[in-house]
Amino acid sequence: MIYFDNAATTFPKPEIVHETVLNHLKNSAANPGRSGHKMAFEAGKAIYEVRELLCQLFNISNPMQIVFTSNATDSLNLAIKGLLKDGDHVITTSMEHNSVLRPIKALEGKGVTNTIVDCDEFGVLDPKKIRKEIRSNTKLIVLTHASNVTGTIMPIEEVGKIARENNIYFLVDAAQTAGIYPIDVEKIGIDLLALPAHKGLLGIQGLGVLYIREGIEIDHFKEGGTGSKSEELIQPLFMPDRYESGTPNTPGIVALGAGIQFILNEGMEKIHKREEFLTEYFISKIKEIPQIKIYGAHHIGTQAAVVSINIGDEDSSEIGCLLDESFDIGVRSGLHCAPLAHKTIGTFEQGTIRFSFGYFTTEYEIDRAVEALKSICDSIEG
Amino acid sequence: MIYFDNAATTFPKPEIVHETVLNHLKNSAANPGRSGHKMAFEAGKAIYEVRELLCQLFNISNPMQIVFTSNATDSLNLAIKGLLKDGDHVITTSMEHNSVLRPIKALEGKGVTNTIVDCDEFGVLDPKKIRKEIRSNTKLIVLTHASNVTGTIMPIEEVGKIARENNIYFLVDAAQTAGIYPIDVEKIGIDLLALPAHKGLLGIQGLGVLYIREGIEIDHFKEGGTGSKSEELIQPLFMPDRYESGTPNTPGIVALGAGIQFILNEGMEKIHKREEFLTEYFISKIKEIPQIKIYGAHHIGTQAAVVSINIGDEDSSEIGCLLDESFDIGVRSGLHCAPLAHKTIGTFEQGTIRFSFGYFTTEYEIDRAVEALKSICDSIEG
Repeated sequence: MIYFDNAATTFPKPEIVHETVLNHLKNSAANPGRSGHKMAFEAGKAIYEVRELLCQLFNISNPMQIVFTSNATDSLNLAIKGLLKDGDHVITTSMEHNSVLRPIKALEGKGVTNTIVDCDEFGVLDPKKIRKEIRSNTKLIVLTHASNVTGTIMPIEEVGKIARENNIYFLVDAAQTAGIYPIDVEKIGIDLLALPAHKGLLGIQGLGVLYIREGIEIDHFKEGGTGSKSEELIQPLFMPDRYESGTPNTPGIVALGAGIQFILNEGMEKIHKREEFLTEYFISKIKEIPQIKIYGAHHIGTQAAVVSINIGDEDSSEIGCLLDESFDIGVRSGLHCAPLAHKTIGTFEQGTIRFSFGYFTTEYEIDRAVEALKSICDSIEG
Repeated sequence: MIYFDNAATTFPKPEIVHETVLNHLKNSAANPGRSGHKMAFEAGKAIYEVRELLCQLFNISNPMQIVFTSNATDSLNLAIKGLLKDGDHVITTSMEHNSVLRPIKALEGKGVTNTIVDCDEFGVLDPKKIRKEIRSNTKLIVLTHASNVTGTIMPIEEVGKIARENNIYFLVDAAQTAGIYPIDVEKIGIDLLALPAHKGLLGIQGLGVLYIREGIEIDHFKEGGTGSKSEELIQPLFMPDRYESGTPNTPGIVALGAGIQFILNEGMEKIHKREEFLTEYFISKIKEIPQIKIYGAHHIGTQAAVVSINIGDEDSSEIGCLLDESFDIGVRSGLHCAPLAHKTIGTFEQGTIRFSFGYFTTEYEIDRAVEALKSICDSIEG
């Protein structure tokens, strides 16, 4: 199958990721940090090394400020709900995923108000609109780094600056960009960074990461064994144990480490350029097909490797099924768990057909997809 | 290394578990249930099949009542905090793990009262003590199936009956028994069952399970993309989507499926008998060493493959280190995240040295451990 669903999860992974997981499972899969034997120490050390790799990638100074979660959604929930209290106000945008919007909407019932800033019909955010919505009780701004619908890169630098100037915490959802685009938490002024392991970072499913800037008070929502302060019936409040109760996802964490190591070895610039090239290549080819509508701004440099299209007014799910069944091409159609983004770009009813590329996507695969789309357009015409 | 830390995580896993994970990662690691292409369907189907295997193992009628979590601690937190409200009362025991005690203690701040019933010095629970503590507002009884410190099997049948007779929900923490001892949720009257994937069920770390009996209202604590009702900004309330936001741990889930399939193929009775035999074998050998104190009731039939000991008044951590460094034997010393259990058996200061066996433990390994313990005792004497 030709796999164009890398925005959901990257596939395939580098071979070293499989090898690392297998080697870990076979040789060192003890419970980390909870026992005094070699294999447990080894597992604990492996986890610490992945915290360090994350620090290297995102310019984080303290590895203990890295919290492992079960996915980026878990990270976003922890950040949003751990920070916001009755009376607080939060600003986000209409291009966010339901992993941001649903927790924020749920907090309305707890006295946390929100403003969802509209992006334009291309999914582009004007940072001035964020500034305009700041109130005296605005505590947090949440912004995706790139839309999972249109691939539009958001102005995190400008919004980070606005947040800093106004003493507002800044949470970035880097689900579509981590591992592909450089993110420097110090330079951009990111206070909280939510990541999935299994997308651009080339790890496997079942793991997320939340970076919490030192000194930010985030509630915890789970208590349990932490392998620390075992004599106490209250949760230890130090990092990262406070937020990491129970046995961690050690295989997932070592897989993430292998993914990051692969990225560092290849060079993120090379990965990023390759994905930009593939995106541009695809867009330039489909622009020649008159029935195809391409959403988003699609200017290279402001577009991640995620492209949403439609064929005339055809139902996006039907075209998605056709691509799968007749051409063995896997895409994702529908609303992509981001209903307001589809309202923003005018596709709430039709949905879109989303093509998302990865570092291992080939030009040949894109050519096959373009042929398939042409063939579908022809059959509809005829 | 000789690995006697199976109560923390079982090691090694059956080869089929490694093969299944690797095959999944290499061939079908799409994002399940979120896209309309073959590989996504395949991943979704694989997850559903593991729900069915869990149903088969625990006599659960509806696979949709199975919720995947990040570990048993996550399951316990969800069950305890999702159920208990201001004004409710919960009963548990002094032999519980911090994954039960810490959430229950945290709820004191939210108006939920608790009674922690004392077990005797062998860690044995008298079910009548539970009955005596029932109040008009008692909503939940939480009980571990077997102590992670002494291996003592708890009377879940009797307590289940007491819970049913009094219309109280019954939550069982089966961290030490799932996959080894038969658990029939219908027969025992279990309303909520919390499990880790990576212990007796022979899956890998990073996954837990919570079974919720149909009709029980449990709050959810996270919202996000569920691949369902994407057009809505509120969390869908149907099972299991309500509790499973974001990308699931698909590799962990398929590994669990392989572990359960291995158990079903071997026969749980055979596994259970083998672990009982190993435990009896170990206990009978160390009984001959006068300096060794063995905790718990250690009657075969009421003892899981977890044995806590001490050598005279020696510090348990030092003996643990010695076993690791001088004999290459991995055990777990200290308080095992269960401080009240150690208070119950009188080892809160000293801790214990815990030997925990698995299906793949050999008699030879146990003999080596017995020799090591003799040697340590001799050196202390001398």
